[in-house]
Order: sequence, then C-alpha cells, then structure tokens
Amino acid sequence: MQCLAMDDETMMRRAIALAAGSAGGPFGAVVARDGVVLGEGANHVVPGRDPTLHAEIVAIRAACAREGTHDLSGATLFTSCEPCPMCLGAAWWARISSIAYGNGHAEAAAIGFDDSAIYEEMRRPLEARRLPMRRMLAAEAWRGFQDWAARPDKEPY
Amino acid sequence: MQCLAMDDETMMRRAIALAAGSAGGPFGAVVARDGVVLGEGANHVVPGRDPTLHAEIVAIRAACAREGTHDLSGATLFTSCEPCPMCLGAAWWARISSIAYGNGHAEAAAIGFDDSAIYEEMRRPLEARRLPMRRMLAAEAWRGFQDWAARPDKEPY
Repeated sequence: MQCLAMDDETMMRRAIALAAGSAGGPFGAVVARDGVVLGEGANHVVPGRDPTLHAEIVAIRAACAREGTHDLSGATLFTSCEPCPMCLGAAWWARISSIAYGNGHAEAAAIGFDDSAIYEEMRRPLEARRLPMRRMLAAEAWRGFQDWAARPDKEPY
Repeated sequence: MQCLAMDDETMMRRAIALAAGSAGGPFGAVVARDGVVLGEGANHVVPGRDPTLHAEIVAIRAACAREGTHDLSGATLFTSCEPCPMCLGAAWWARISSIAYGNGHAEAAAIGFDDSAIYEEMRRPLEARRLPMRRMLAAEAWRGFQDWAARPDKEPY
C-alpha cells in the first residue's frame, strides 16, 4: 500500500511495470483515488486457469476488497492497454470515474492480442452474433423477475 | 454435480431457480456441456462487495475451476437474463460455444436493471465515452509490449 500520494504518470508506470512482470499476458492495471493505490494486478488468465482474470478485473476486485464496497466512485483505472469490453464493463459497474491507458487496440493487435473481433461482436444485433444466442423459457424467466420485483427486501443497485 | 445428462430446458430452469434464490440481484446462470453442469452461480455483487460477481461470471469461473482450464469450448451458458457486455466478454474469452437466455434487456429494464446505457457506451468512439478515457505514456507502454513480444517464453492465448 502506498502512503505518499503518487501522480498519474507514476500510476501508469506502475501499471506498465506490472505488465512486464505478468505471469500471463503482458497487461497490468492499477486502481487509484487521490494519489493512493486501492488495488492493482496483472493478467493471470493462463496461470490462474480463469478467463476473467484480466489485469483490470484483478485490480478492480483488489480495490473493492480493500475498500469493502463494489462502488469505486472517484477512482481512476490506469491500465497498460485499452480495456476489452469485459474490463470496460467491469469498470462501468464499479463506477470507476475515469480510465487512463497506455497501449491502444492497434498496439495490442500488433503483438497478437486482437480485441477488435469482440468489439465488433458487441455491435451486432443478437441474431447476427458469432457466439450464437437464443431465447428460452421467456415466460418462466419473466415470472422470476416479477417475483423479485414484488419482494419487500430487494436491494437494487 | 449432476451425473444424469439434463436437457436444455432443465438447465434454463436451474438458472431461473438460482436467480430466485440469489442474495444479490435476481440473476442466475449455469455452464453446461453435453448435459452436464460444469459450473453455476447467482449474482453476488452486493453481498460479495464485488461488481464483477454477475451470475454469468460466477458460473464461468466455477466451470473453469472444475475443468482446470480457461477454455470452455463446446459449453453452453444458460442465463436467466441476456448478458451485459462484461459477461458477454467473459463468455467470449472463455470460448463458450453458445448462449441461451430467458429474460431480454427489455424485461431487465422493466424491473430496474437497465443495461442499455453500457451497450451504448461500447458503441461510442473513445473520445465520446461517458466514462472518460485518455491515453498516457504511449511510448513506454509500447516498449513494454515489444519487450514481451521478444521473450522466448511468452505464452499467447
């Protein structure tokens, strides 16, 4: 844990250093607020046998564990590379306030990590997805939603 | 763990039942292959204080832990509600082969969980994002990528 406030360039250099030391893909990330590191991490997909362990997710989860909340409002995500949709989604749900990135998609593609296919996938209508999607048991699923909506103890977020 | 092969409707009903029993939002998911459940889960964001614990992520991580790999090729993700970009991204990286969903976005929005803003965010160019993004230390970040690309022990995936 850092006790002295660090500036943004120091944070990004830390993310780049984490990428260099990664046991997985060359990606590192730091979540910080007011010059203090809340969480950090490197890509751990292959060694962790977990496709969700991108550096940004590792850093966001570490920050949430430290802060005891799923809400990281006011924090910045420093990442050595522009986030994929999974990580951008995680930052969104964590209420991260801004993102700083080092490499862009073009640089990632140049070393063999091409996110463009997944960004294209997000833009396709459901019926044209490469990962096929179909709807099932819509009435039963909707009944479940209605039951939840009628619960007095529900906790929206 | 299931030992008898279950059909797709049984899998989806299991996802809907997990949603009903969730301690967080009303979302459940099951990852299955050849009629066998590999992993399952419910939304755990609020109780777990972790914004990444959507039902689909919980189920994918459980399946990967069980299988000992980040690669779930051939598996289907059954989810009680159409996935958000974070979860669709996780399914993509896990190489999930198909997705079956119960409720659509419209039903989720009707009970207060509106994912449309985040889907719109994905479609915006970087400079127009609501979650502001800026590039920093591009040259240093690129040097890190080049160093990784030159490593003989690198493991692309």
